[in-house]
Amino acid sequence: MADRGLLIVISGFAGSGKGTVVKQILADRPYRCSLSTSVTTRSPRPGEEEGVSYFFRTNEEFERMIREGELIEYAQYVSHYYGTPKAWVEQKMKEGIDVILEIEIQGAMNIKKMYPDAVLIFLMPPGASELEKRLVGRGTEDAATVRARLSRACEEAQGIENYDYLVINDEVEACAGRIETIADAERLRTGRQADQIRQMQQGLERFRV
Amino acid sequence: MADRGLLIVISGFAGSGKGTVVKQILADRPYRCSLSTSVTTRSPRPGEEEGVSYFFRTNEEFERMIREGELIEYAQYVSHYYGTPKAWVEQKMKEGIDVILEIEIQGAMNIKKMYPDAVLIFLMPPGASELEKRLVGRGTEDAATVRARLSRACEEAQGIENYDYLVINDEVEACAGRIETIADAERLRTGRQADQIRQMQQGLERFRV
Repeated sequence: MADRGLLIVISGFAGSGKGTVVKQILADRPYRCSLSTSVTTRSPRPGEEEGVSYFFRTNEEFERMIREGELIEYAQYVSHYYGTPKAWVEQKMKEGIDVILEIEIQGAMNIKKMYPDAVLIFLMPPGASELEKRLVGRGTEDAATVRARLSRACEEAQGIENYDYLVINDEVEACAGRIETIADAERLRTGRQADQIRQMQQGLERFRV
Repeated sequence: MADRGLLIVISGFAGSGKGTVVKQILADRPYRCSLSTSVTTRSPRPGEEEGVSYFFRTNEEFERMIREGELIEYAQYVSHYYGTPKAWVEQKMKEGIDVILEIEIQGAMNIKKMYPDAVLIFLMPPGASELEKRLVGRGTEDAATVRARLSRACEEAQGIENYDYLVINDEVEACAGRIETIADAERLRTGRQADQIRQMQQGLERFRV
């Protein structure tokens, strides 16, 4: 398939299960889908590999990348930079591979400005109480952190309409399947098949009367 | 599923195999998909049943339906009227059933104006020479008719970009499957899930700080 790969942006509340769903998609479509590897200025944690977990860069190098437009988007968290490398993403798409970006709302909106044909998907648990249950059930955060995440979800929920698709994460495999369905359908959009349309138009020219 | 059904418009050149593909979709999804029954002023042919093949109406009755806005679209061919009854289509969609309209380009564009969230799909054989082969191979039309259909295809091909999706009909079941994939993905559009979004927003309100 010579068609250009899709840029698929997946966002969702903390506790929406984004990470697990993305892993499932990558397992389902190892040769057709790829998760974007971010660039970061934070230090590698034990077990993290250069180019797999992240591309690890110095502050100076990261700021050079910003200046020279080598990042699709970037953000700063807790004094560290995180960004999406443009060259890597473009290369994968050129190879016909769909690139998944797991990114928060503001970043997603910036991507849409730069890549109007990106596919923006918002992942949601089946309900607000289910979200609360999942965050409490994790048992990894204290009550204050859980409340902060829920309050943030309340804010983020205001931006769902700006996404193209809304997918409910009730069950990991079903949810991954829905996102794969979206990817398959998006490949069939006329806007992504300009070559095929032109070929047919040219092929039919000889029948013009 | 209480969600509103989709209005799916399928167009394609004569010889694109529209009819066969639509039959396959209806066979695959008998309870979720329905083909719109047209209203016509022509006389029933042997075997044609009222309300199944067509709704048969007099000229006067048809013109009343036009005047009173009871048709989504209509056209006149060889001194007979053909139209799509609004009430029937709306009722099916309300029941959550996807309604398929098999309709030519001009009609499709009119539908899109009236129903901006209709899903417009253009069906195409794999190539221009394949189209010629199919039309000649049917053996039901003389050479002049085949040339007229190909010349018409040449004109129609200019309008493909106005459709939302382009689907190649290489093999009936695969092609029907692609259209079903499109329908499943379209159901996940944020614009079609306003209720779910509002529910989540309201459910999260109590966590606002």
